[in-house]
Amino acid sequence: MNDFNYYTPTRYVFGRGVEAQTGELTRWMGVDRVLLVYGMGSVVRSGLLNRVKASLDAVGIEYLDLGGVLPNPTDDRVYEGIEMCRRENLTGLVAVGGGSAIDTAKAIACGVPYEGDFWDFYAGKKIVEEALPVGVVLTIPAAGSEGSGNSVITKLDGLHKISLRTESALRPKFAVMNPELTFTLPPYQTASGIADMMAHIFERYFTNTPETEVTDRVAEGVLKAIITEAPRVMAEPENYDARANIMWCGTLAHNGICGTGRQEDWVSHFMEHELSAVYGVTHGAGLAVMTPAWMTFMATHNPSKGAQFARRVMDVVNDDDTQAALEGIARLRAFYASLGLPITLAQLGIETPDFDLLVHKLHENKGEVIGGYYRLTAVETRQIYELALFQ
Amino acid sequence: MNDFNYYTPTRYVFGRGVEAQTGELTRWMGVDRVLLVYGMGSVVRSGLLNRVKASLDAVGIEYLDLGGVLPNPTDDRVYEGIEMCRRENLTGLVAVGGGSAIDTAKAIACGVPYEGDFWDFYAGKKIVEEALPVGVVLTIPAAGSEGSGNSVITKLDGLHKISLRTESALRPKFAVMNPELTFTLPPYQTASGIADMMAHIFERYFTNTPETEVTDRVAEGVLKAIITEAPRVMAEPENYDARANIMWCGTLAHNGICGTGRQEDWVSHFMEHELSAVYGVTHGAGLAVMTPAWMTFMATHNPSKGAQFARRVMDVVNDDDTQAALEGIARLRAFYASLGLPITLAQLGIETPDFDLLVHKLHENKGEVIGGYYRLTAVETRQIYELALFQ
Repeated sequence: MNDFNYYTPTRYVFGRGVEAQTGELTRWMGVDRVLLVYGMGSVVRSGLLNRVKASLDAVGIEYLDLGGVLPNPTDDRVYEGIEMCRRENLTGLVAVGGGSAIDTAKAIACGVPYEGDFWDFYAGKKIVEEALPVGVVLTIPAAGSEGSGNSVITKLDGLHKISLRTESALRPKFAVMNPELTFTLPPYQTASGIADMMAHIFERYFTNTPETEVTDRVAEGVLKAIITEAPRVMAEPENYDARANIMWCGTLAHNGICGTGRQEDWVSHFMEHELSAVYGVTHGAGLAVMTPAWMTFMATHNPSKGAQFARRVMDVVNDDDTQAALEGIARLRAFYASLGLPITLAQLGIETPDFDLLVHKLHENKGEVIGGYYRLTAVETRQIYELALFQ
Repeated sequence: MNDFNYYTPTRYVFGRGVEAQTGELTRWMGVDRVLLVYGMGSVVRSGLLNRVKASLDAVGIEYLDLGGVLPNPTDDRVYEGIEMCRRENLTGLVAVGGGSAIDTAKAIACGVPYEGDFWDFYAGKKIVEEALPVGVVLTIPAAGSEGSGNSVITKLDGLHKISLRTESALRPKFAVMNPELTFTLPPYQTASGIADMMAHIFERYFTNTPETEVTDRVAEGVLKAIITEAPRVMAEPENYDARANIMWCGTLAHNGICGTGRQEDWVSHFMEHELSAVYGVTHGAGLAVMTPAWMTFMATHNPSKGAQFARRVMDVVNDDDTQAALEGIARLRAFYASLGLPITLAQLGIETPDFDLLVHKLHENKGEVIGGYYRLTAVETRQIYELALFQ
């Protein structure tokens, strides 16, 4: 087991109607003027935004709106938000939505007190040392950003989709989590979120660090729970308990508890980020294609962890590691397909992928050799993109 | 799934040599004069206390010593510590040791800023609203107090051993966790710690709250990891990785992650606390006796969760819930015995238990009817104590 620091000072408030506590929680995080960051119209149409505003009004917190943040959020809205916070003297942020709203709020949060360009943090030129406090009202279980110190933003100039990772500087101070808010998520978005949270676990699970039994068991447990609950939320979108389990799984998948004490990987995410940046696909759907493709490559190059996943999570019985891993991947793909997710690039709507462009951008953004579980050059990452063509 | 709040703002710093960071972490928690609370001679003899002091000296933090805290810590040392903090204007505490040192530090921490008797918090007369910050250098993985908001203190007058539970007021600000510090733990203490952490999971696992799949799976995963790693630490006390897994299991067992979204039980703990208070037995060893006895009663009164434990964790194959649960308990007792733990009251050294006294004190301290998973009066708790006579 590797040495680790684990510090997750996010206050999770989970249950029915908890969005009514947003105002008092915002006060608890020590601010009285906030930027409200949100995305698509559903937050407005459902009346949620008004309920959140009423909760802020009730305790006398002032706010300005930054709405209309799009999926795969872009740097232009971040600059706009930084400008608003500075001009209006806003000292905190409340994101209402999913990963896009939260990640935008985090980028603004570290950008405001920084004299240079906030992109320096994403480009790896600077470490985040200071940030405005961020609170979250979560509506989409997927990105796990409500509990993570991470943020993913796309730079419009060159379509660079880059993730920033901090130990704790960008962890939200609070996350209000009401599973009822997810009842109206469209099936495709629900399913994509499930693939996203599973991928967050896989990126931590596939490691060569030996002797991480407890972290493995926790990760396998959360994966098992997702696989049990996912068909239920698809069949009964208004089943509170199934939605609640999936929502909490999404947090545990990415708040670090599934990754303590070991090297992580993240290549599937990096490869999907290029798909999202170039083709604008839904992140989780892209992961449902890329993760099994990456795992298929690993089944012949480093099969041990894939075999363990197959046996412990997918109930595969096979003594041969490569064969067990491949059977586990087949079951994982069948599971994704059962949720209505694409499992090939063609099903994702990318009939003739530009492999040259994807591989070029991938290594331009992430370096010549990438990956923790297996070191990959452009030769191998191209093979993995090609494996994503087939079931 | 029940509504829940989950807030664990403890900074875990885990790995070799991390006790050298105690000074800077103490500064990070915002204090410069602390009370150092520690227990048995081993902390002194091993040189650990001197290394911690050197780390505090290096950053200019002043400290006074409160040493010699005993297992099953008592209120007299708490009063002494409160007096020292007030007199010497100490504004924080660093506990070096296991649950006894940490729980004493927590009791002092909430007692100092409170005008009344600190015991009011333990007696349930007052809620902790304010406490001095507490840091931990952990040497015994067992109590889980390094990550919990709880503390257990015995009142010498009447030998009342009472647990205080807070959501976050008494959670340590940091926990320094070096598995090497546990290499020299005697086998009996190592094994007792393992029974203690397993019991912390059982108290949360045995619930009637439906639909807690993800919490169940996480709890089962940590139990599986403990059962895998425990024989290794017994056979190879200086195996770093086995010790590291057990140490982290002890934290996860009690920091709340195994209990989100459901009612808990805690009767086994309450019943053991009376054994400790009256007979002075080691807490974890007492739990190795009481937990299976409690589970045996439940196998015929409310077998569902015991059967799930038996099947998912102990690999029992049996379609009948009661039979499955009983087989799981038999395997659990065999596991405890394999670690050298007692599994009957006689083996614990209590040949002729005073059932009247135990049952009387239990219900005097905890109420006429106790338990979350199954409501128990003095008639039933007596039966459970009697079940602890037999294998």
